[in-house]
Amino acid sequence: MTKTTVAALKNTASQLDGQTITLSGWVRTVRDSKALGFIELNDGSCFSSIQIVFTEEKLENFKQIAKLSVGSAITVEGTLVLTPGARQPYEVQAECIAIEGDCPPDYPLQKKRHSFEFLRQMAPLRPRTNTFAAVFRVRSLCAYAIHKFFQERGFVYVHTPIITASDCEGAGEMFQVTTMDLNDIPKDGEGNVDYGQDFFGKQANLTVSGQLNVEPFALSMRSVYTFGPTFRAENSNTPRHAAEFWMIEPEIAFADLDDDMALAEDMVKYIINYVLEQAPDEIAFFNQFVDKGLLERLKNVAGSDFGRVSYTEAIELLQKSGRNFQYPVAWGCDLQTEHERYLSEEVFARPVFVTGYPKEIKAFYMRMNEDGKTVAAMDLLVPGIGELIGGSQREEREEVLVSRIEELGMRKEDYTWYINTRRYGGCKHAGYGLGFERMIMYLTGMSNIRDVLPYPRTVGTAEY
Amino acid sequence: MTKTTVAALKNTASQLDGQTITLSGWVRTVRDSKALGFIELNDGSCFSSIQIVFTEEKLENFKQIAKLSVGSAITVEGTLVLTPGARQPYEVQAECIAIEGDCPPDYPLQKKRHSFEFLRQMAPLRPRTNTFAAVFRVRSLCAYAIHKFFQERGFVYVHTPIITASDCEGAGEMFQVTTMDLNDIPKDGEGNVDYGQDFFGKQANLTVSGQLNVEPFALSMRSVYTFGPTFRAENSNTPRHAAEFWMIEPEIAFADLDDDMALAEDMVKYIINYVLEQAPDEIAFFNQFVDKGLLERLKNVAGSDFGRVSYTEAIELLQKSGRNFQYPVAWGCDLQTEHERYLSEEVFARPVFVTGYPKEIKAFYMRMNEDGKTVAAMDLLVPGIGELIGGSQREEREEVLVSRIEELGMRKEDYTWYINTRRYGGCKHAGYGLGFERMIMYLTGMSNIRDVLPYPRTVGTAEY
Repeated sequence: MTKTTVAALKNTASQLDGQTITLSGWVRTVRDSKALGFIELNDGSCFSSIQIVFTEEKLENFKQIAKLSVGSAITVEGTLVLTPGARQPYEVQAECIAIEGDCPPDYPLQKKRHSFEFLRQMAPLRPRTNTFAAVFRVRSLCAYAIHKFFQERGFVYVHTPIITASDCEGAGEMFQVTTMDLNDIPKDGEGNVDYGQDFFGKQANLTVSGQLNVEPFALSMRSVYTFGPTFRAENSNTPRHAAEFWMIEPEIAFADLDDDMALAEDMVKYIINYVLEQAPDEIAFFNQFVDKGLLERLKNVAGSDFGRVSYTEAIELLQKSGRNFQYPVAWGCDLQTEHERYLSEEVFARPVFVTGYPKEIKAFYMRMNEDGKTVAAMDLLVPGIGELIGGSQREEREEVLVSRIEELGMRKEDYTWYINTRRYGGCKHAGYGLGFERMIMYLTGMSNIRDVLPYPRTVGTAEY
Repeated sequence: MTKTTVAALKNTASQLDGQTITLSGWVRTVRDSKALGFIELNDGSCFSSIQIVFTEEKLENFKQIAKLSVGSAITVEGTLVLTPGARQPYEVQAECIAIEGDCPPDYPLQKKRHSFEFLRQMAPLRPRTNTFAAVFRVRSLCAYAIHKFFQERGFVYVHTPIITASDCEGAGEMFQVTTMDLNDIPKDGEGNVDYGQDFFGKQANLTVSGQLNVEPFALSMRSVYTFGPTFRAENSNTPRHAAEFWMIEPEIAFADLDDDMALAEDMVKYIINYVLEQAPDEIAFFNQFVDKGLLERLKNVAGSDFGRVSYTEAIELLQKSGRNFQYPVAWGCDLQTEHERYLSEEVFARPVFVTGYPKEIKAFYMRMNEDGKTVAAMDLLVPGIGELIGGSQREEREEVLVSRIEELGMRKEDYTWYINTRRYGGCKHAGYGLGFERMIMYLTGMSNIRDVLPYPRTVGTAEY
């Protein structure tokens, strides 16, 4: 007798014909007619379920099993039988079935198909459905693919801090972190909050990006990356915004914008290839039920050379497109999703990097180009979604960096340690950010960020 | 000419004798005598530095290079020369050296050895030192080893939420997360804070553990794990406490405490073997300069069968030890580090699992044993540190779980969704928690948690 899993059987079943095995899992469906019944059992080890055949002849508790509710946990001991020609290549003929945990009739996941909105009300049960088991397995594989990609290239994974006393982007809506009693906030002599009495002795927030913190590690250990949660207290109730999401931020020293784009291109292709290879059942499921063009689009991205176009050229392409965009196009404007999708889907029909954005619409740390008007920034636009990655070469010239900080009215003294990284053997370096959930949405075709996060946090929602 | 790295040369140097290569990195030391000089160059790609030989004959900027400050970033073009018999197997004879970024004389990292306390004042520069480059490379490799271990076994990586409205342990000092203006907190009719007006519409905190959130994923996807930041607002200024740290929490369905211990034992050995294999230079460095017994201890742990002893037996062993412990030993007491180290170092001389703790000193979700007094908990004690891992089989019986919650005076309605996981096809399951920084300290011999975190957050400290 072998205790095994449905995933393991994929490799071992052909050698186990006629042998006794044990499986534990959850009942997806039960059918019975008189003395014979069938259970579709999913044991969580992979996307597929397995068919269990049970008979009154073999089971003492036949009647109880035939009445089992969907969702019950059981352990099955039985004979594995190869069934060549049948829809499933093998099944289990049960010798005995033990109930590990039954499930009351009010179990919310009945056999019928439920809407994503309905399932969003029950985050702890969602992974029992085909769709969400597939989403969360792809999420896990994608996370691992990212680590594997960077580790194989000698990158060092850096845990930048979650709690921070500085704000990377110089603005942004941040969550404040405190241990003060909000019913009795300590005040200073002038009646303001006395942060000196808070846990960290100063005002503290949740990070919006690990970039400024990871740059010094690139300026020491050369090739590094972050992968951690980031936070935005944006009051946006859209399918693309969450208050808590995960981000990957590689940073490379002795590297320019071209190196940065080459790395991003390699990474995206690596992730797609890894997920296609490791989760073929899941991707086939998404392609059939969630997004018909998914598989073709992913294969196209993995197989194409990404395009490169300057922002200035991109604006010209958009202006002469003859399209009636909702947001008008002019040099200096930020690209909207409709523009990004037009460029990647219709002009290039593949992913495309747009480079050299006007400094006004990009962050202070991006390297100023010779023209004094644009910065060495890049956004990667992909068909079906628009912007997937944003990055830049960093301003390594201390005096230029400082003048940008001053120009933007930021407090220079808040950035002393960051500016010092340019003084102490600073060098050319670059990096980018990948929104992890954006990548998962791209890999699965799921269109709401709430459906790719295990427990989404959005305005008004922090359940469980 | 090949642009390469010191790490890559380890494999390729023997084929590159006499060839021109390019390296970029940071100056660790410069020595010169008249027309000849030597630079120790570290390029961040690995622990080792490489020797650059430069001469007045070759370099136009010889004098400038000879005066380079420690910490400067340079690019060297030169000839790789194998030097059989020398201390280093190869060196680079420079054809030209370009300064990427110089470094002023006030650079805090001079050639002399600095104390860890001193370096703690400058988190962004620490990774330029041997010790911290080694710590953070081991940290990265250890993180990857953990992912690799679980992914190879089919575990699903789950991102449990950072912001939460519930407190896993039923107590604990938590950080509050808010977007309210602390100078003008909205109040309700009774003068209390009106959390209805906060971002999430209720009071929210930073997570202290992902366990309760990950259990439903084990009860769907079988074998899962978390790896993310957790937070404790403990006012403890000790070498072992940080307010922000990372934790790994695997959770396995259809598994009991024995399965849990087997998993933990396999994981610890896997991590150690991976790090010994991937970071031999770093571990040798720690063994020489930080903790003389490190390597032997790690090899001993990786090679031994972990012991198993019940809490009740452990108490007896401690009582008859004849030792004069600072904390007295009696059945019912929590084990202190001195007790844990005595057991693992002197009684067992290897890692040992202690099982079956009194319910009073363990959490509500741990499975009650038959005796009604102890729970199916386990702690893994290791030589040199004490507790490394804590875990348990979870209470899967709804009525027992509810009565524990009520017994402890916790609000049952706060745990409705969690209790429901026992109603809807619940089953036997188990899991454990590994403090990531504890593991890094164990792997490196570093004795202060502040020295294994890139940017430590402790009482009064949230710099950078």
